[in-house]
Amino acid sequence: MPPTPGRPRSAEADRAVLGAALELLVEHGVEGTSIEKVAQRAGVTRATVYRRYPDKTRLLLAALLEGLRTPSDLPECDSVEEMLSMWAQGLGGPDAAGGRRLLRRLMTGLHDHPELHRAYREAGIARRERWIRSTLERARERGEFPPDADLAVVGEILTSAVTTHLLTRPDTCTVREVEDHLLAVLHHTCYRRTP
Amino acid sequence: MPPTPGRPRSAEADRAVLGAALELLVEHGVEGTSIEKVAQRAGVTRATVYRRYPDKTRLLLAALLEGLRTPSDLPECDSVEEMLSMWAQGLGGPDAAGGRRLLRRLMTGLHDHPELHRAYREAGIARRERWIRSTLERARERGEFPPDADLAVVGEILTSAVTTHLLTRPDTCTVREVEDHLLAVLHHTCYRRTP
Repeated sequence: MPPTPGRPRSAEADRAVLGAALELLVEHGVEGTSIEKVAQRAGVTRATVYRRYPDKTRLLLAALLEGLRTPSDLPECDSVEEMLSMWAQGLGGPDAAGGRRLLRRLMTGLHDHPELHRAYREAGIARRERWIRSTLERARERGEFPPDADLAVVGEILTSAVTTHLLTRPDTCTVREVEDHLLAVLHHTCYRRTP
Repeated sequence: MPPTPGRPRSAEADRAVLGAALELLVEHGVEGTSIEKVAQRAGVTRATVYRRYPDKTRLLLAALLEGLRTPSDLPECDSVEEMLSMWAQGLGGPDAAGGRRLLRRLMTGLHDHPELHRAYREAGIARRERWIRSTLERARERGEFPPDADLAVVGEILTSAVTTHLLTRPDTCTVREVEDHLLAVLHHTCYRRTP
C-alpha cells in the first residue's frame, strides 16, 4: 500500500467502523445495531465513532453506500439480456450470500426508518434506476419493446423479480439459476427479441 | 351470541391469545414476540398459553393462519382483471394498512425461521397459488396468453408486483391506485385481452 498523507491509523479506523456497521446491519437490522456495538466490533472507542458520525442513521447510511459500491460501476449494456446476466453475477454463486442478505435487509429493514430509507433511495437506487431505464430505452429503439410500452413498468417487473428471488429462493443458488429465472421473466413481458 | 357447548371462557381466551400473538407479530416480528408478552397482552397467564401451544412457533403459526382467513374464500374469477381487482381491495383503501403490515411481516420476517416459513408456505400460500394458477389457465384457454406461456412465471410476475407495492408504496394508497398498478403490470406481460 502506498504511503498516504495524513493519519493512516485514522483511515484504518474508518474502514473498521464502516465494516462493523455493515456487518451488524446485515446480521441484526437497524434496530439491533447501536453505536456502542459498532465501536465494540470495530475495536475502537465510542468517541472514535461519534467523531465521524453524529448519529446511527448517518453511520448506517455511510456503511451501506460503502457496501453497495460495485467495482464494475454500471457499464453500458448492449442488451437487456446482458444487463440481467450482470445482475445474476451478483445474485448467484458461492460469494453471493452476503450480498443477498444485505439487499434483503435494505429492501425490508429500512421500511420503518424513513430518513434512512429516503437517503438510501436517493443515493443508492436512483442511479441504478437511471441505468436500467437507459438500457430499456435503447432496447425499445431497436424494436424490442412496443413503442407505447411504459418502461418504468417494465423496469419494475424486472427489479421485482430480483426482490422475489431474494425473498423466496435459497442463498445457495447458482449464477445460472438466477440468470435463467430473470430471462424467463423478461420473456414473459412485452419484450420481443429482434430477429 | 348463541350459547356454545363446552367452556365459553376458554374460547374467549383462545381468541385473546391468537389476537395478541398476531398483533405482536405485526408490531415486533418473530424475534420481538414471546409467549410471555403474548400472555401479558391477552390478559392471561403463561400457563394458559402453554396449555394451547407448546412453543412460540406453533402459536405464531396458528395466529397467522387465523389472521389470513379471507371471508370471501377465493371465489372463482371470470378474468385476470377481476382477480387483480380483488387483490387491490385487500391492498388499498382506509382499512388496508394493518393487512399490508401483516403481509410485509410474513414476506420478510419469516426468512430466518425456516420451520415457520415452511408451515406458512404450505398452509397459506399453496392454496392461493393454485387459485391464481387456475385463473391464469382459464385465461390461456380463452387465448389471453400464448399457448407456450409458462403460467408459473406469469403468476410470479403478478405476485411480485404485490410484493414490490407492499415494500415501496405508502400504506395510505387507494384501491384504485393499487388496481391501476397491478393492471399496468399485467398489460406489460405477454397477456393480450381478447377482442
